[in-house]
Amino acid sequence: MEESSKMEKKERLIVVAVDESKESMYALSWCISNLISDTTTTNRLVLLYVKPPPAIYSSFDSAGYIFSSDVLVAMENYGRELATSVMERAEAICRKFNVNNIKMERMVGNGDAKNVICGVVQKLKADTLVMGSHGYGFFKRAILGSVSDYCSKHAKCPVVIVKHP
Amino acid sequence: MEESSKMEKKERLIVVAVDESKESMYALSWCISNLISDTTTTNRLVLLYVKPPPAIYSSFDSAGYIFSSDVLVAMENYGRELATSVMERAEAICRKFNVNNIKMERMVGNGDAKNVICGVVQKLKADTLVMGSHGYGFFKRAILGSVSDYCSKHAKCPVVIVKHP
Repeated sequence: MEESSKMEKKERLIVVAVDESKESMYALSWCISNLISDTTTTNRLVLLYVKPPPAIYSSFDSAGYIFSSDVLVAMENYGRELATSVMERAEAICRKFNVNNIKMERMVGNGDAKNVICGVVQKLKADTLVMGSHGYGFFKRAILGSVSDYCSKHAKCPVVIVKHP
Repeated sequence: MEESSKMEKKERLIVVAVDESKESMYALSWCISNLISDTTTTNRLVLLYVKPPPAIYSSFDSAGYIFSSDVLVAMENYGRELATSVMERAEAICRKFNVNNIKMERMVGNGDAKNVICGVVQKLKADTLVMGSHGYGFFKRAILGSVSDYCSKHAKCPVVIVKHP
C-alpha cells in the first residue's frame, strides 16, 4: 500500500521537546511507552530543550527595573544549569524504561521555543514531534502563547500533544 | 517508575477520527505504522466518523435557497452512504497492514465533530486520539473551525495531529 510503504523505515527520528514542566517529562514517558518500547524499530530520540531568548529574562523585571549585567550573567548561568538539569531528568526517565532501541541525543536551542522546535523538526526531517500541551517554563514562557498550538499547526511532521493527566 | 508504570497496559484503546479526507486516511496509516504494528500490545482501534449535524447541510444552500424536504432526505442518505464509504476505506487500510493485534470497531457519531470526538474519547477513556490536521469534509465542515485545534486542547488523552506530507 502506498501509505504504509512510505512509512516503513529502519530508523525513526523522534524529537521530544522537553522543558522544566512535569508535563513535558510525562510526554517523554508517553513517547517511550507508546512509540518506542515493545517495538523492534531503532529510534533516534532527540531531546530538545529551548532556552528562552535573553530578551525574556533580561532588561526588565516584572516591576520595570533594569537588571544590572551581574544579574544578567547570573540568569544566563541559571539558564544553562536549567538546561542541564532538564536533560538529566529526561535521560533518567529514558533509562528507567530500560529499552535498548533508543539512540539518545541532547540538543539545546536558543530563542523562541515554537520557532526553534519547528526549525529543528524540519532540519532533521523528524518523523514525529512529541511535546507537552502547556510547557510552563523558565519565566513563564507560556505567556508568549502556546508553543504546542503553534507546533501542531506548523511542524512538518505528525505532532503528539500530551497532557499531564 | 511512576510514569512508566501508569502507562503499562495490556490493551490500549486508540480512537482514530476518520472523515472523507486523504489526510485522515494518512493519519490512520500513521497510527497503525507507528503505534500498533511491530508491537505486542493488543489495541482496540475505534474508527470514529462524525456526520455533520443536519443544520449544516440543510435549510439553506450557499446561494440562500431553502432546500425542499426531498433534498434533505437525499442529503441524509448521502451522509449515511458517505459514513459507510469512509469506514470501508479505513478498514481496507487496516487490513493492508496485515497486523493481528488490532480489534477494530466502527463508531458513527452525529453532531459537531469536535464535541463528539472529545466526548467519545472521554466516555471510552481512550489512551490516544489520532486525527488529521485539517479534515476537509462533507460540505466543508472546516469552515466551522479547526476540529484538530480544539481536540488537541480539550481531549482527555494524548492527541496525535497528523498532516498529509
